[in-house]
Amino acid sequence: MIRPARLEAAARVMARADELAAISETPDALTRVYLSAQHLQANQRVAEWMRQAGMLVWQDSVGNICGRYEAVQEGAPAVLLGSHLDTVRNAGRYDGMLGVLTAIEVVHSLHQQDVRLAQAIEIVGFCDEEGTRFGITLLGSRGLTGSWPAHWLSQTDAEGISVAQAMVNAGLDPQRIPQAARDAAAFSSYLELHIEQGPCLEQAGLALGVVEAINGARRLNCRFTGEAGHAGTVPMSHRKDALAAAAEWMIAVESTTQQQGGNLVATVGNMRVLPGAVNVIPGEVSLSLDIRGPQDVPLDALLNELLAMAQAIAARRHLQFSAEEFYRIAATPCNQKLQTLLADAVQVVQGETLSLPSGAGHDAIAMAERWPVGMLFVRCKGGISHHPAESVQVEDVALAIDAFGRAVSVLAAAE
Amino acid sequence: MIRPARLEAAARVMARADELAAISETPDALTRVYLSAQHLQANQRVAEWMRQAGMLVWQDSVGNICGRYEAVQEGAPAVLLGSHLDTVRNAGRYDGMLGVLTAIEVVHSLHQQDVRLAQAIEIVGFCDEEGTRFGITLLGSRGLTGSWPAHWLSQTDAEGISVAQAMVNAGLDPQRIPQAARDAAAFSSYLELHIEQGPCLEQAGLALGVVEAINGARRLNCRFTGEAGHAGTVPMSHRKDALAAAAEWMIAVESTTQQQGGNLVATVGNMRVLPGAVNVIPGEVSLSLDIRGPQDVPLDALLNELLAMAQAIAARRHLQFSAEEFYRIAATPCNQKLQTLLADAVQVVQGETLSLPSGAGHDAIAMAERWPVGMLFVRCKGGISHHPAESVQVEDVALAIDAFGRAVSVLAAAE
Repeated sequence: MIRPARLEAAARVMARADELAAISETPDALTRVYLSAQHLQANQRVAEWMRQAGMLVWQDSVGNICGRYEAVQEGAPAVLLGSHLDTVRNAGRYDGMLGVLTAIEVVHSLHQQDVRLAQAIEIVGFCDEEGTRFGITLLGSRGLTGSWPAHWLSQTDAEGISVAQAMVNAGLDPQRIPQAARDAAAFSSYLELHIEQGPCLEQAGLALGVVEAINGARRLNCRFTGEAGHAGTVPMSHRKDALAAAAEWMIAVESTTQQQGGNLVATVGNMRVLPGAVNVIPGEVSLSLDIRGPQDVPLDALLNELLAMAQAIAARRHLQFSAEEFYRIAATPCNQKLQTLLADAVQVVQGETLSLPSGAGHDAIAMAERWPVGMLFVRCKGGISHHPAESVQVEDVALAIDAFGRAVSVLAAAE
Repeated sequence: MIRPARLEAAARVMARADELAAISETPDALTRVYLSAQHLQANQRVAEWMRQAGMLVWQDSVGNICGRYEAVQEGAPAVLLGSHLDTVRNAGRYDGMLGVLTAIEVVHSLHQQDVRLAQAIEIVGFCDEEGTRFGITLLGSRGLTGSWPAHWLSQTDAEGISVAQAMVNAGLDPQRIPQAARDAAAFSSYLELHIEQGPCLEQAGLALGVVEAINGARRLNCRFTGEAGHAGTVPMSHRKDALAAAAEWMIAVESTTQQQGGNLVATVGNMRVLPGAVNVIPGEVSLSLDIRGPQDVPLDALLNELLAMAQAIAARRHLQFSAEEFYRIAATPCNQKLQTLLADAVQVVQGETLSLPSGAGHDAIAMAERWPVGMLFVRCKGGISHHPAESVQVEDVALAIDAFGRAVSVLAAAE
């Protein structure tokens, strides 16, 4: 079913992903962080591949590697394709890289057929999405949107090297950061292909899916305060057991979130029990709540409901409950037209399509500040990501190139 | 209502408890451990008070301080009264000591009235119930029962000093330990007065209660094993959240134990969540279960039910559950006749009585191996114990002396 040319392209993507995986700070584990020698080296390899695909190539002033495949009319607006080339520590080889490498194949195919479209196609390999080195994320994409906050330059890595110093060391000029910003008119839209990093496609038996939104998230530190007591001498009816209250709430969090549907998820990932002895009734429990969803309004409604439940549980048990939000990111809806465009392409190559949210963050979050964004997800084995076991199938990559190519061609054909 | 003589006696008990509290290794916190200089010093003070109450006094070969108030016929069997004089670190001043001091007042009162009874009355101030120094408990009472295991002598404290060496340092001869053992015929019964160390009497508005049994206990390390996952990308329906399973079980533990009644208690006191990150679904949860009750059969039945529930919860959620028991102590029922005797005396002085289990362990556990045991509980403020805030009211102590004296007199009057 898949054309031999697509399988060849997919095989090339896999080989290039392997090649990039070898460009690592550590010999046995893939780690490639912003402004490292490996970052510059990976940029050079990707630049070569872009050139081979007929693109004009440059490294921008924050360290993104950029390529342009010209339109029929020189200087026309472009469809921008991209993802990131940096990694977490001990990373997988597809998170980010797959989006850049498949985009190159899409352009390569047009170039092979000597096709020019009404719009140019640009590709960007973002220099830092993960934030591994400096603890700040989306540095590459915020270069394009021109939204670097001033304080970023003084952020330091584990060795105390600032972003500004690291830029100079890498041959970049911090003064020139604003020149990485692109005019709103430069791009008609931004499309990103990425591995799902979750199990939905695998469990649906599908290679490809279309992202409806990148989930908004809120994180809270929560606390139930009861009364510690002797596990042997305090009757069940007289206890103010903070852990029992937390348990009741966790069950409410799980069932309420499940009933809510709408791709909302809520997780209690960490918990500390005090005093934490086998023979003492817990007097205090601290626990984290991570709650995410593709739309902010239902997300906040659910969060409020869960917090009200916690208060009610605490009140009924004569305990205290408190919660403090320490992280919040708004949901990033994908552009409806781009969703339809991608879904049509997926429908053609796969026979059916699936709409799903992205639980993880992506460069598209930053890009959506200025341009319409769309995202195509590719199945990964077991939903595993940020781990050396990250894995995609070459057949899925071939399908992805096919669908992505179709969508890009349709999009770029329009003026 | 309380006779002046009883209030005087109670005031003396309070003053003596204060005096003993000053015999401490640390100036600002009460700590008095087995075979310390403070242990020997406390024994000497208690010996003086026993002598003032007309008793013949000796320190036995394991370090218990013992006194005998002779019967009408010399050498008659005795009613044995006692509790312990050692403490936990940063202890309260009534846990143990109150039982010894009130017993002395009971004898003192008989002595004042020059009353001899058919049975002698002996008092023992046990040298080590808490196990603070060597990590082994009930050393004093197991001296009387003659059930010291051979390996106890080589147990060491935090400084590496063995029990045997510490005995020598304190002027005791480890070879003579068996001579602390008393014939079964020496005592008709053992009565212990102790603070409740729990909130039941306070909440019932009563000063005194009669112990039905010292709770049996089982402790288990339990584990739910699910699957860690990304808190943003794994939908609620696809999770194998070990913490959610644990939460469901904890609620079942609480409600099932409560419904069971029968003074059973179950506590999850400690918990560890892995990997324990705000944005990761917990893959593994380790938690402790402490379960206690006054009778072994219902206790084991409840434990089995709770474990079966955990298995069912794990199976329904496609997780694993395992549990390992690491501690088990059988319940020690108090002698029925002694319960009735104590209840009758409490009824007289208090107008009503309450039967309750002891959640904490006591010397009576060891004594019950050889003699019928009975225990009288005295209300303590907030149920607090093993803490400097441990507190009893002088009026309660007066009532306790009254009730305890009545019971002892009735008991010792019988041949």
